[in-house]
Amino acid sequence: MSLAEFALIDRIRARTRARADVVLGIGDDAALLQPRGNEQLVVTADTLNSGVHFPAETPAFEIGWKTLAVNLSDLASMGARPAWCTLAMSLPSTEPAWIDAFADGFFALADEHDIVLVGGDTTRGPLSLSVTAMGQVSAGHALRRDAARVGDDIWVSGTLGDAAGALRLWQQGRLDVAVVADDPDLEALRQRLLCPMPRVKLGQRLRAYAHAAVDISDGLLADLGHIAARSEVAARLEVDTLPMSSALRNALGRDDARDCALRGGDDYELCFTAAADQRDALHALAEALSLPLTRIGRITTGQGVHGDDLPNADGYEHFVLQ
Amino acid sequence: MSLAEFALIDRIRARTRARADVVLGIGDDAALLQPRGNEQLVVTADTLNSGVHFPAETPAFEIGWKTLAVNLSDLASMGARPAWCTLAMSLPSTEPAWIDAFADGFFALADEHDIVLVGGDTTRGPLSLSVTAMGQVSAGHALRRDAARVGDDIWVSGTLGDAAGALRLWQQGRLDVAVVADDPDLEALRQRLLCPMPRVKLGQRLRAYAHAAVDISDGLLADLGHIAARSEVAARLEVDTLPMSSALRNALGRDDARDCALRGGDDYELCFTAAADQRDALHALAEALSLPLTRIGRITTGQGVHGDDLPNADGYEHFVLQ
Repeated sequence: MSLAEFALIDRIRARTRARADVVLGIGDDAALLQPRGNEQLVVTADTLNSGVHFPAETPAFEIGWKTLAVNLSDLASMGARPAWCTLAMSLPSTEPAWIDAFADGFFALADEHDIVLVGGDTTRGPLSLSVTAMGQVSAGHALRRDAARVGDDIWVSGTLGDAAGALRLWQQGRLDVAVVADDPDLEALRQRLLCPMPRVKLGQRLRAYAHAAVDISDGLLADLGHIAARSEVAARLEVDTLPMSSALRNALGRDDARDCALRGGDDYELCFTAAADQRDALHALAEALSLPLTRIGRITTGQGVHGDDLPNADGYEHFVLQ
Repeated sequence: MSLAEFALIDRIRARTRARADVVLGIGDDAALLQPRGNEQLVVTADTLNSGVHFPAETPAFEIGWKTLAVNLSDLASMGARPAWCTLAMSLPSTEPAWIDAFADGFFALADEHDIVLVGGDTTRGPLSLSVTAMGQVSAGHALRRDAARVGDDIWVSGTLGDAAGALRLWQQGRLDVAVVADDPDLEALRQRLLCPMPRVKLGQRLRAYAHAAVDISDGLLADLGHIAARSEVAARLEVDTLPMSSALRNALGRDDARDCALRGGDDYELCFTAAADQRDALHALAEALSLPLTRIGRITTGQGVHGDDLPNADGYEHFVLQ
């Protein structure tokens, strides 16, 4: 059994929740939304392609989750409240069980963060998911890449490198992403790769404390490099302070774990800068959110990302054609 | 020569214009936009896939144009002013000449309608273009599908069936979509298929006169059927009044032309309903815009789309898997 386009859209639409500011949702030529006055709109778009951004054997629930998570993470890094999104799906087939599991993952995260699907498109083709996510933030209060100041501390949330570690283990044939792993360390890493937690609450709280912020999607070195470049400053890392999970160290060993933490993408933690007098407040925030926040370096004059023992400071690109 | 992702993004970004309400455009984790107070946001998303929504041999300029046009058309049918958009590109290669020609087409139309690209994503894969377009409209003034009233006239803009006619000629091997046709009729139809003109100005002006509106992307019968269904009324067509170009009649003959006008997609004209006392105003509007507006039927009680000589009243779906 498979579904025609309208039946598929109905199946997705049935999962969407109400939101007071959605005047007209899916079902017309466009959605009608009522933004809050005096707030800015925050808009981001990210695509996930099977075999490029996730292993082809990734279960449908996790694909749905991650499709939205990577976009929520961009809203989080701006300090925005999520509001609405669109979803363009290119699907090789319309098997109802797959669609339902995908929707389970997508809407589990959507409902948790009160973001409502208001439009989209379904087409036939290789599996590809494009989301445009919209949020709001008080004018002038967004966290931007270009706002780091000399003397700022550099912080990251959570632990780094877990997703990249899982990917390496998968590439080495030591981890099957499609099934729950027996080893608790491997399972913890698998979850970090497949179901990243966008730091939406943290991002909103950071508006009060942070200067610049970015989410770590391409790797710490690459993404911190964006802050340095756009802010016209240098970032000096204390590499030994990078927060790493015991699961990552146990599974990969110290050197590979550190490499994943520096260069690995797909963590979706936040990296941000804040004045040194915010340290107490940020430690208190970490406690309030039950989410580690770790100081990993300083912003200085100059350019680029530096640190002891640090070779070429670059992350990776998903997409480099020769 | 080919381009890495960041070089490609820079190449696209260099083409974007400024807009006073774009606080922060491409280059951060998300764009920051300042919507007008007291206005609603209008959001639509549409994807074009090579080989599904346009012939694979379509030139890059026309692909760029059409990618934006189909989304502007959805904003037009709501009566919205275009403002911002995102673009997710899946590309099989990053040949600079192709990228530049695509951008020429995309930004020619974007600049004409003052819509600014504020974000997006590039990934590697089969050619697929997803746009989310955002516009604004005064609260309560959008043209919706569910607002047709019994007694309304049914109107369409322009001529119907030209794009479907071109597609048929291409399928029959009588038209090469990649080159200018010698025959002026064929060239006119080719242009209508490849470079549809979204009726953005018309849509905005119609807020003063029309009740319900839809753009004709899936065919008149299908799209008028959406108005009938959502408004809980019937639509009675006077099939002999359908506006058709002489190019279409010359190239296809009367019967096939009429079939294209009824069922053919991709015209991106507007179909709308308005009270009978708006006829003079609408004729004056047609003159002011140099765009024919033709009365083609009436809204009655009941359901569905009806008309003399009309068999099953359905359009087509791009995407029906068996």
